Amino acid sequence: MSSDLATALFDPGSIALVGASADVSKPNGRPLKFLARHGYRGAIHPVNPRHDEIGGFRCYPRLEDIGRPVDHVFIMVAAPETIRSTIRSCGAAGVRCATILAGGFAEAGTEGARRQDRMVAVARESGVRILGPNSIGLINPASGLGFSANAVLELPSLTPGGTAVVSQSGSLIGAILSHGEARDTGFSKLVSVGNEADLSVGEIGSLLLDDDETDTILLFLETLRRRDLLIGFAQRAARVGKPVVACHVGRSEPGRRIAATHTGALTTSEKAIAAFLADHGIAQVRMFESFVESPRLFSGRRPRVPGPARGVAVATTTGGGGTMVIDSLAQAGVDVVEPPPNTVERLRCLGIAQNQRHMVDLTLAGARPEIVGAVIGDLFGSEEVSAVVMVVGSSAQFHPELAVEPLTAWAGREKPLLVYLVPDAAASQQRLTRAGIPAFRSAEACAEALRGLLAWRPPRPSPGDTRPGAAAPPAIRGTLTEAAALAFFEALGIEAAPRAIACDAAEASRNATRIGFPVALKVASPDIAHKSELGGVRLGIADAESVAREYGAIVEQVRARAPEARLDGVLVQATIEGCVEAIVGYRRDPVAGPLAMLGVGGVMAEIYDDTAFAVAPVTPETAHAMIEQVKGLAPLNGYRGRATGDVSALVRAIVAMSRLAFHPSVAEAEINPLIVREEGSGAVAVDGLVTGADETMPAFRA
Amino acid sequence: MSSDLATALFDPGSIALVGASADVSKPNGRPLKFLARHGYRGAIHPVNPRHDEIGGFRCYPRLEDIGRPVDHVFIMVAAPETIRSTIRSCGAAGVRCATILAGGFAEAGTEGARRQDRMVAVARESGVRILGPNSIGLINPASGLGFSANAVLELPSLTPGGTAVVSQSGSLIGAILSHGEARDTGFSKLVSVGNEADLSVGEIGSLLLDDDETDTILLFLETLRRRDLLIGFAQRAARVGKPVVACHVGRSEPGRRIAATHTGALTTSEKAIAAFLADHGIAQVRMFESFVESPRLFSGRRPRVPGPARGVAVATTTGGGGTMVIDSLAQAGVDVVEPPPNTVERLRCLGIAQNQRHMVDLTLAGARPEIVGAVIGDLFGSEEVSAVVMVVGSSAQFHPELAVEPLTAWAGREKPLLVYLVPDAAASQQRLTRAGIPAFRSAEACAEALRGLLAWRPPRPSPGDTRPGAAAPPAIRGTLTEAAALAFFEALGIEAAPRAIACDAAEASRNATRIGFPVALKVASPDIAHKSELGGVRLGIADAESVAREYGAIVEQVRARAPEARLDGVLVQATIEGCVEAIVGYRRDPVAGPLAMLGVGGVMAEIYDDTAFAVAPVTPETAHAMIEQVKGLAPLNGYRGRATGDVSALVRAIVAMSRLAFHPSVAEAEINPLIVREEGSGAVAVDGLVTGADETMPAFRA
Repeated sequence: MSSDLATALFDPGSIALVGASADVSKPNGRPLKFLARHGYRGAIHPVNPRHDEIGGFRCYPRLEDIGRPVDHVFIMVAAPETIRSTIRSCGAAGVRCATILAGGFAEAGTEGARRQDRMVAVARESGVRILGPNSIGLINPASGLGFSANAVLELPSLTPGGTAVVSQSGSLIGAILSHGEARDTGFSKLVSVGNEADLSVGEIGSLLLDDDETDTILLFLETLRRRDLLIGFAQRAARVGKPVVACHVGRSEPGRRIAATHTGALTTSEKAIAAFLADHGIAQVRMFESFVESPRLFSGRRPRVPGPARGVAVATTTGGGGTMVIDSLAQAGVDVVEPPPNTVERLRCLGIAQNQRHMVDLTLAGARPEIVGAVIGDLFGSEEVSAVVMVVGSSAQFHPELAVEPLTAWAGREKPLLVYLVPDAAASQQRLTRAGIPAFRSAEACAEALRGLLAWRPPRPSPGDTRPGAAAPPAIRGTLTEAAALAFFEALGIEAAPRAIACDAAEASRNATRIGFPVALKVASPDIAHKSELGGVRLGIADAESVAREYGAIVEQVRARAPEARLDGVLVQATIEGCVEAIVGYRRDPVAGPLAMLGVGGVMAEIYDDTAFAVAPVTPETAHAMIEQVKGLAPLNGYRGRATGDVSALVRAIVAMSRLAFHPSVAEAEINPLIVREEGSGAVAVDGLVTGADETMPAFRA
Repeated sequence: MSSDLATALFDPGSIALVGASADVSKPNGRPLKFLARHGYRGAIHPVNPRHDEIGGFRCYPRLEDIGRPVDHVFIMVAAPETIRSTIRSCGAAGVRCATILAGGFAEAGTEGARRQDRMVAVARESGVRILGPNSIGLINPASGLGFSANAVLELPSLTPGGTAVVSQSGSLIGAILSHGEARDTGFSKLVSVGNEADLSVGEIGSLLLDDDETDTILLFLETLRRRDLLIGFAQRAARVGKPVVACHVGRSEPGRRIAATHTGALTTSEKAIAAFLADHGIAQVRMFESFVESPRLFSGRRPRVPGPARGVAVATTTGGGGTMVIDSLAQAGVDVVEPPPNTVERLRCLGIAQNQRHMVDLTLAGARPEIVGAVIGDLFGSEEVSAVVMVVGSSAQFHPELAVEPLTAWAGREKPLLVYLVPDAAASQQRLTRAGIPAFRSAEACAEALRGLLAWRPPRPSPGDTRPGAAAPPAIRGTLTEAAALAFFEALGIEAAPRAIACDAAEASRNATRIGFPVALKVASPDIAHKSELGGVRLGIADAESVAREYGAIVEQVRARAPEARLDGVLVQATIEGCVEAIVGYRRDPVAGPLAMLGVGGVMAEIYDDTAFAVAPVTPETAHAMIEQVKGLAPLNGYRGRATGDVSALVRAIVAMSRLAFHPSVAEAEINPLIVREEGSGAVAVDGLVTGADETMPAFRA
């Protein structure tokens, strides 16, 4: 620990427990018991005016009465004003930091948020750093600092280890510790950050990068706070080579909000946060079991630099168990490679038949240490193999010497070895995890964790703050109409369809004749976001006469359905044909910050939720990667004999759009559709929306 | 047990072990040890000419030498001819059934399949029923019948219970038993069926329906064999009210086959088998952890009859854990309901703040038995709630009296209660499972199992063998051309687009003028399945002159690219417009039998794999259910102001197509696209393929 703050926070020489209770069944009674149980060697000072002594420790009426230096105070009182006065006392006594247990702050709504702001202001004035509020405390196993109300501290002992846990959910640090102890593996620090009113995940993470006892950092996240500190932490973690693995929960959002743009409707916090974490080099797993086991998988590794894709080899002592892993890997999108020929030949010579194409099946006769060892050796030696999954059946429970023990020799190699234990086999799991080999209790968690490792990438390089070739777009106020939005996209350097506003039928016909048939007609109004729902769009109009007739029909229909909407006229637009339609979006996300979005165009975008996100601005490489992620854009590469699309033009449009990150006046922008034409023919914006940061996109108002 | 076969199989009074080894580390040495360990009370006769005695049992040189009646023989020799002669000896000695351990039969390829056929023929002649080959044996805990080589029988004791397991994977019966014992729950029978050369899953399942000790039957499946017996078993299981729960593995198929139809390409064994099981009333779970825990969830329940959809309520003592369950339920497609107002009010009065909309959060202060009990009571009492998930955090490990014990009062209710234990808490899991409450170690398994329960339906009624109103289609040989296929669909009572074959440009122009512009032109050839890939399709041709020109262009292009293809001319077809395009398919699946398939039309079908399957023939109700399952058909219900589609016409087409199940001459048929027009305007087949059962669909031959 290099800093005073880190020492006071994680390894204090003396602590005070304000509001400590003598009732050990209560949350505020537990920490004293836990500190004693786990042998904390520093000075412990309970503070409670109603007791002279608690649990054998002298109890003080007030913090001021302790009369000796205190490094870290656990404030367990509930009343906001008492919390504030305690913080002031901390400041007066030179206390470096205070952890606050109570809830009822920002997590409880706007009134709570105001309480939190007042508390933080007092802490700033007092020079006290705050962990919480709504923090269940923190645990340092090496120093016996059971500085928490979490019931997991009932454990008879705590095992120190190299994994640090930083969690936005307090209760989860208990569950993680519990599973770690069950695997006989330990932790360096476990920190419940609560509402992060002051000390945030990013700042605490940075302290842990300087902690010699920590080699891997797990983040259990419900949201992102203090993105600036989080980014700094993530980038430094990548530089110093300490893996950071996040599990983000709260991914589902029952009842999505109504949004004017697809970009808005399709940006879930799941995707926004996943893009943020991935682009800043933080690995991600989704299942708790994967998360718990991830230290063995990630510790000591570096993120994979994109390169020739290889696959995962599977060996098993149970055909059914192996098949479960193959299924789970397929579900997770991880490629499985066939066993190398030398392995198949080796087993054939031993009379162990191989009936499966995608795994080495050692059922019964093959579950012997020398065979398991030789097979794992073959798989590690194969250039086709980037990771090995070994599945062990019933022998794992009763005969670990057969197929579990020989695996321990393969710990710590460059290629990871993951083990799925099919039966209930806690002792074998402990044996493996102690050896540093990730061992899973479910095929799904095994596959999902491996997916997380293979998807892990270094932080994406930022394209930097150089301006794009085209002029900066004008500042935006309110929402731009379609015509203005298309001009805006042109200012970004994106091609838009030829078009002109007409204010009467004759002008519409003249415009159409000039632009060339067939044309599209679209009502132009600052008050109408969803034109087609009001009958305000006509496509494929073939001649001047029809244009004049449809002009009248559109105006009549829109006036009837949206009588209060202001009409600017009707936009006459060239018909653009191409290979595929895409949505190219940009959004200043309230949680994850500026994001580039790409999706398949048309109604399918929302139906299939087929999108890719990245932190904006993006490089061309990132834009290419986004295109690869959108399944519905696969026809760009030619599909069943069709022409290939102009991928480069799409990349340029994504990059140009993402550079809106340099323009704080834009809240959200979307081209829908951008029609990608045949290779060499460009990509053309046909419709779109832009909203200024000064107001949110209006809902459908007609 | 009612039948002689069942008694001989599951509860034999005397057994012989042919090929028994004195080496207990070998698979053929284990059963004797395991029978002795688990106190099997019948007579045990090892048979091996090289020993006089094994493990204290007299050993006979040959089966014939035993000289006393034997009910069930475990044949553990490997040589196929020795197996056959042993079966003959069994027949001569009046042995009812034999279990065969050896592999190298049908699972090992065509040569093995021939060996298997010869063995079955011998068994038939000898009047001996066969379990296996490739069976690891069976286990009857109540009678101590550890009649298996599975290492799980090293367990010190076996717990009898109401769950029977029938598994195509032998090793998995060990893993299931292991996890059952870890939960302190038992089994009635565990059977490894191996290759099902004679006794199949369906027949064994039927025997178990008559077994008083069995209340729930689990099937671990890799494929379907003897569909006839499986259907009979499933239907009788539904009648007698014993739930059958299947876990199907081998779902992923690395490298899908090239298929002429989308129906072929999109029919994975996963979907085919899932449709088969669902339609015959067999419940399904996908994760092994869900499967292991499913007896507590399914036992004593009936499948849900479709009715007003309600949701699942979630209560938790850990916010993070509750959020994981909410995420997993969303992922599994299970709706979550908000807590009832009385619960929220009750907690407010107790000062337990509720900041989450979708769960009852009892973190810290609420984790008390009286509060947990009251909340569960509220949730069970709410009409909105169809099931309750309770999440228990650290207290589950150290203070089960707080939030685990009070749950046991809610076992056996009509509404299910599921528990997710977030920490490592084996004792609490045992406590709950003993009480009959399903308790999970992962949020994903909990959600997935509940999805399986909620998706479980009674067997679908068959529409019966009455012929459709339209005439039966002609018998099919080979593959029909597009024109013939459309006529075939018309014979089924499905509307097809007006069209006519033209053999020269002038005839094409005349046809087009008669049909009405714009028209489509498509090359007509019995040798070309993918017309558009060869440039053999032109759409939207607006006048007679263009038709003549395009006719020439098509013929020239196709002749250049597929010089050997026979050309019948060019099909001139009316342009059909509508709300959505669908694929309506039919397939006689080699694994699952006749299937109806529905998908979104166009290129999106394969890109998004957006399909629904049902056992053919289907009723209109089933066709409606299939439409609901295909996301890309959602615009049928009106989307962003568009017109609604003619769902009834689509239903009629699906039903008509599915009745091909009555026509064994058809192997595969597909309309792609079927254009569904506005409500009341029908659905029109525009293109399609039909293949006779006498040959497989030709690959793309150009």
